[in-house]
Amino acid sequence: MVKYPGGIAIARKQQIKQLKTVKFGKRGMNFEAEINATNEYYLMHGLAVIHKKPTPVQIVKVDYPKRSRAKITEAYFRQASTTDYSGVYQGRYLDFEAKETQNKTSFPLKNFHEHQIVHMENVLKQEGIVFVLLHFSALSRTFLLKASDLIPFFKEKEGQKSIALAFIETKGYELPTNQLPSIPYLDCIQKIIGGDSHF
Amino acid sequence: MVKYPGGIAIARKQQIKQLKTVKFGKRGMNFEAEINATNEYYLMHGLAVIHKKPTPVQIVKVDYPKRSRAKITEAYFRQASTTDYSGVYQGRYLDFEAKETQNKTSFPLKNFHEHQIVHMENVLKQEGIVFVLLHFSALSRTFLLKASDLIPFFKEKEGQKSIALAFIETKGYELPTNQLPSIPYLDCIQKIIGGDSHF
Repeated sequence: MVKYPGGIAIARKQQIKQLKTVKFGKRGMNFEAEINATNEYYLMHGLAVIHKKPTPVQIVKVDYPKRSRAKITEAYFRQASTTDYSGVYQGRYLDFEAKETQNKTSFPLKNFHEHQIVHMENVLKQEGIVFVLLHFSALSRTFLLKASDLIPFFKEKEGQKSIALAFIETKGYELPTNQLPSIPYLDCIQKIIGGDSHF
Repeated sequence: MVKYPGGIAIARKQQIKQLKTVKFGKRGMNFEAEINATNEYYLMHGLAVIHKKPTPVQIVKVDYPKRSRAKITEAYFRQASTTDYSGVYQGRYLDFEAKETQNKTSFPLKNFHEHQIVHMENVLKQEGIVFVLLHFSALSRTFLLKASDLIPFFKEKEGQKSIALAFIETKGYELPTNQLPSIPYLDCIQKIIGGDSHF
């Protein structure tokens, strides 16, 4: 067990995570940090309001010391029942999950939990915009894949353990990574909803 | 410090919270539980997908015991940077905060944090549906108030410490409480967006 004081812990953890992660776009930021920076950019420029949901935690014990703030002394990570990111873009509900792999030829399906897939289906039924951002860290390539193209792997195509890169190249949308914001998924969404394609 | 095993802790806490709360609609459920049940009802009936965001927690220490799941041993509550509830209704982004008071004639503004107000403004700019559910527990009355009617209290009307019930009765929408779901806010939203009113 390692202990760091408050805010530093977060920064330190981020550093460790970055070191563990294959450098993204040679800027040394990890995929999640890039997405958060992109969301911050969209928010600052009034283009969309997208937030990452807090990590769900089951709190068991809380200590209330006098004259200092409540301290959680026993808690456990819970599995998320929804996707990680959601928000609003031009009035429409937008929802996505971001995952990365070190594989070079396919994306492992075990990265997704069953209730995330159920959630995506529910959002689709409500006509929300829902997709996944898939990052191949070893290839430095990022794709947007509509949930409607992902879900069949958990239904009709059940039994498959991964999605071939070739399928993602065909059905997905590759995002350019050498610009600001670094994961420009909104441009892609705009193209999709502007055209004939449906989510 | 009191300790309960896993899931029971949550149930026990709920019970304590319920005891502390003035009985809601004489059914003994607290306001938050009523909203969660309403969201569950909407989800089950395919009417909307609305979730409560997890409580934001800053994790400082995590213990990884062998052969058992990770245990968080030091963490603190963080202030939420958005509202508590969000999701999708007929393709549109829907976002709200729920608050209750024991006051009988006005609703205290200190219940809202500044960045929640900023978040509501951002959502409005993106044409999202954003509002608050205000519950007067001593009166057993619940109102939906559009964010656009709340925000001025933090801008032009700055200095006021509460919103008069009379204002809420005029500008807000009272929700019936003797039906299923128990906080039928969607009916109200449908009336607002179906009519001339804007969020």
